[in-house]
Amino acid sequence: MDKTDISTLLGEKGIYIMNHAVLLMHCADNKGIIENITQFISQHEGDIIELDQYTDRVNKHFFMRVKWNMDSFTIPKENIRASFQQSVVGVKDIHWKIYFCDQPKRVALFVTKLSHCLYDILQRFQSKEWDIEIPLIISNHEKLRYIAEQFDIPYHVFPITKENKLAQEAKELLLLKEHNIDFLVLARYMQVLTDDFIAHYPSRIINIHHSSLPAFPGAKPYHSAHKRGVKIIGATSHYVTAELDAGPIIAQDVCRITHTDSVSDLIRKGRNLEKTVLSEAIWQKLQHKILTYGNKTIVFQ
Amino acid sequence: MDKTDISTLLGEKGIYIMNHAVLLMHCADNKGIIENITQFISQHEGDIIELDQYTDRVNKHFFMRVKWNMDSFTIPKENIRASFQQSVVGVKDIHWKIYFCDQPKRVALFVTKLSHCLYDILQRFQSKEWDIEIPLIISNHEKLRYIAEQFDIPYHVFPITKENKLAQEAKELLLLKEHNIDFLVLARYMQVLTDDFIAHYPSRIINIHHSSLPAFPGAKPYHSAHKRGVKIIGATSHYVTAELDAGPIIAQDVCRITHTDSVSDLIRKGRNLEKTVLSEAIWQKLQHKILTYGNKTIVFQ
Amino acid sequence: MDKTDISTLLGEKGIYIMNHAVLLMHCADNKGIIENITQFISQHEGDIIELDQYTDRVNKHFFMRVKWNMDSFTIPKENIRASFQQSVVGVKDIHWKIYFCDQPKRVALFVTKLSHCLYDILQRFQSKEWDIEIPLIISNHEKLRYIAEQFDIPYHVFPITKENKLAQEAKELLLLKEHNIDFLVLARYMQVLTDDFIAHYPSRIINIHHSSLPAFPGAKPYHSAHKRGVKIIGATSHYVTAELDAGPIIAQDVCRITHTDSVSDLIRKGRNLEKTVLSEAIWQKLQHKILTYGNKTIVFQ
Amino acid sequence: MDKTDISTLLGEKGIYIMNHAVLLMHCADNKGIIENITQFISQHEGDIIELDQYTDRVNKHFFMRVKWNMDSFTIPKENIRASFQQSVVGVKDIHWKIYFCDQPKRVALFVTKLSHCLYDILQRFQSKEWDIEIPLIISNHEKLRYIAEQFDIPYHVFPITKENKLAQEAKELLLLKEHNIDFLVLARYMQVLTDDFIAHYPSRIINIHHSSLPAFPGAKPYHSAHKRGVKIIGATSHYVTAELDAGPIIAQDVCRITHTDSVSDLIRKGRNLEKTVLSEAIWQKLQHKILTYGNKTIVFQ
Repeated sequence: MDKTDISTLLGEKGIYIMNHAVLLMHCADNKGIIENITQFISQHEGDIIELDQYTDRVNKHFFMRVKWNMDSFTIPKENIRASFQQSVVGVKDIHWKIYFCDQPKRVALFVTKLSHCLYDILQRFQSKEWDIEIPLIISNHEKLRYIAEQFDIPYHVFPITKENKLAQEAKELLLLKEHNIDFLVLARYMQVLTDDFIAHYPSRIINIHHSSLPAFPGAKPYHSAHKRGVKIIGATSHYVTAELDAGPIIAQDVCRITHTDSVSDLIRKGRNLEKTVLSEAIWQKLQHKILTYGNKTIVFQ
Repeated sequence: MDKTDISTLLGEKGIYIMNHAVLLMHCADNKGIIENITQFISQHEGDIIELDQYTDRVNKHFFMRVKWNMDSFTIPKENIRASFQQSVVGVKDIHWKIYFCDQPKRVALFVTKLSHCLYDILQRFQSKEWDIEIPLIISNHEKLRYIAEQFDIPYHVFPITKENKLAQEAKELLLLKEHNIDFLVLARYMQVLTDDFIAHYPSRIINIHHSSLPAFPGAKPYHSAHKRGVKIIGATSHYVTAELDAGPIIAQDVCRITHTDSVSDLIRKGRNLEKTVLSEAIWQKLQHKILTYGNKTIVFQ
Repeated sequence: MDKTDISTLLGEKGIYIMNHAVLLMHCADNKGIIENITQFISQHEGDIIELDQYTDRVNKHFFMRVKWNMDSFTIPKENIRASFQQSVVGVKDIHWKIYFCDQPKRVALFVTKLSHCLYDILQRFQSKEWDIEIPLIISNHEKLRYIAEQFDIPYHVFPITKENKLAQEAKELLLLKEHNIDFLVLARYMQVLTDDFIAHYPSRIINIHHSSLPAFPGAKPYHSAHKRGVKIIGATSHYVTAELDAGPIIAQDVCRITHTDSVSDLIRKGRNLEKTVLSEAIWQKLQHKILTYGNKTIVFQ
Repeated sequence: MDKTDISTLLGEKGIYIMNHAVLLMHCADNKGIIENITQFISQHEGDIIELDQYTDRVNKHFFMRVKWNMDSFTIPKENIRASFQQSVVGVKDIHWKIYFCDQPKRVALFVTKLSHCLYDILQRFQSKEWDIEIPLIISNHEKLRYIAEQFDIPYHVFPITKENKLAQEAKELLLLKEHNIDFLVLARYMQVLTDDFIAHYPSRIINIHHSSLPAFPGAKPYHSAHKRGVKIIGATSHYVTAELDAGPIIAQDVCRITHTDSVSDLIRKGRNLEKTVLSEAIWQKLQHKILTYGNKTIVFQ
């Protein structure tokens, strides 16, 4: 009985570290590609646990995610990537990555002054809903240090000015590399990152923006929503790219408002969305379910 | 036992024509204004059925809707407006209207080629969910004439070109005045109305736009939503104003989509939203629940 | 360029009759089963268009849906089922069906007195959102005959009493067989079908129930919801089985209500849900995306 | 400029302690009752900030909530209740309460082993989203003591067995009275309270149940939902009454699930709902917006 079963039967829950591998790939549409890859796995005694594929019929492009159990897999872990490369010889322009699920992901959190997303993430971390490591929290303010201390996580403050931004980011990058960080989460981090910084973590920086993008990008979206008189507000989690609030969207959610809701009410109601949507995006990322293509995401089932 | 009770008890449903009056008003915030107005009604033996008020604390502005039963009201209908004016003497900058609910509203529908909103409205009309009259349907195309014929409603076609637009609108206006139309519904009418036309029906032309405004105004919003890779699409019902898709929002709704949804899927899923949201706006209008203020709506409970 | 592309590019939409085949299958979990089946298709020059699989890890059971293009398929249509049987020799307890998408499905509608679901379906039918045939409408009342006449569809009335139910159902079954009906839709049909009748169409009778099942099964669910004071109401589409309102759930949706909503308001708001949820279930059925297992459905992506 | 304005303009948010009073009342429908009460307030120089009323047309019953600013109110606080009683002399069977908003509410939290609702509440408390006091946390387990310590709140453990339940509840009641608790929040407290305990806090114990009541009351609702194959799960916040999970519903929310969601996934997704719905109910309670009538709630706008 594997761990998934145990967790289901006992009513426990969360992401468990398991001896699984995940392939994320895309390529031009190609008759036989599913057979080709499933054959590679089953011939080496891998047991496919999840497979989801999608074909973009307009652009003739194929996308797939496969997860398999490695317990009986006959190829040693260190050779799998080379073997897989062999198996897809001749598939044109194939892009692929293989991830192993036997180590917890290492996540860095970036915050400024608002605590709701931070607590939401830390609660999931502490209760083992997510089996991750959080080696550090980075902020441009001292304000939330007490929360880092509540959870015994190192808290590094890098105040940002126009003049020192590049230098501070260089220090942050050093720290992130040092801690071998898998991906970054901007949990209401109120600073724009430079293109150079972002380039170090392509599709590996998750932001939460407090509007239904593409409506109301930039600063003070709840004020803009209130002014426009919308009846529904939202939150959007996306990968950070060079253009502000314009990266590939991972998750969105909304809630209804009425004319009686002041800007303060929008801010209050929106916080519920921000927490849920950011955590949804992190959850998908932890399961290697997100593929970016152009400026869009494929979020596998 | 009044008609509302009967409809509730017998499981029937719909808007019934009743001997009610509705006051919609707004003015600068004013201590005692609620007392002032409720006194006017109760002193003349009106029985208040619904009262909803809202104060914008930032702009110090007060809004109210009151509905009362006229059965024992001691002021004759034709004198009520004058009497009310007396009762609020001294209230600065008050804007108000009184509506009587003893006549079905007369609604004109505008359509082009898509039938889903039209059938949705006609079904509600025919089943008496809405006790309205639809004296005519106006279109810029012949395509949906058969539907008008199914329901035995006059169908007038005014093909629009850049050259003839003003002349055609003049004919439409004549027809609308002739039929004593209370308000217009653009049920996926694919023509931009001129400012002059709109000025004849301020806050009396309801449009349905197939996106979550302010995202994706203008043409082909589903194509834009697909291109941006959003995870939620929407529809918005609003009053038509001179600026395209920028009028006061009345109602909105959304649904989730995924990367697997093509533009066709968005169009298909969006139609469900368009029908529901447009009908929701019409329903609020029929009950005199919508007040516009600036470029926003107050939609009373 | 195939029809899907055309419809996407031109902004047309709907289900088109195409030269596709769909396999729906389930069996005990089985290493290599995906490879086995995708090999069968690609070796005979089938081009896989959609593949979705799911493994129930607790019960060790595997489910899959595959759709492929038959244009270059080397096995003649009449031999495909036999060939497939060969290809899965040795897979224990496999249940499977292959459907061909080159003929419109033939759907029978059952109604009583409420027109909203009926119009909603007929609008989708007439606008070619769904490429189906509706050879007949069956009712236990005369009331909606005029709608059948509007759309020129034969309307058969079978009044039902306790005494004549079996005899009437026998006549209905005869008619359904005669018209070679693929599946039945109960569009607010207010009669309970006998177990014997249901047995003729297992997983082929779709009902809409006006509550969030399992809450409020049986009669007058909106009255019960109002009495209980719920803040959310719903609608549920499910396959009809011998136990009333207890069959496998296909689709559900909900909307918010408040204390101000009377039973009539619930009925009115609920109609929107009923239309959307029933049509969602029909749409999934038309695409062969629903598999029943135990008393549950797998609704493939 | 009052505090509300400041908070709106500066983008701050939360419940502020203010010199306001709130009247919650209900009585048989009564021509002139609104005038009667608004007159009482405005004649004594109270400035009405919010007024919401509702008439149950079937049962001829009237409900109202009024909030007014006390800054210039001419009746001393200690005499208001007596004065109000005078003003409604002759109104039959009137039930009413007046609350003052110049003191933070004192809330007791009850928990067992799950931390998500507890952290969610404590984050709102600590960030001043809610201006409340939490004098103590009560649990039947030691497990969450570390969280109480993180936030420096006294944590009292009362292990419950069938034998000691009455005795333990007596001790809990003593503690609650001692701390002058306004209302209790069961934040996933996994013990059934006795009728006697509940009777001490009528409409003052808020529970969160992890299903869309009335579906799946009692233990393990996510397991039951999974077994039934529903496509939507929910959470319900309600007042605790003698009958388990059958008290007046305050707030509900739902989310979609699919066949791919295991019981663990339901538990994980449901936690988001539980947090949001419980906090929504607490928020309404803090604003004195909830009136119970029969087994239902009126939640004013």
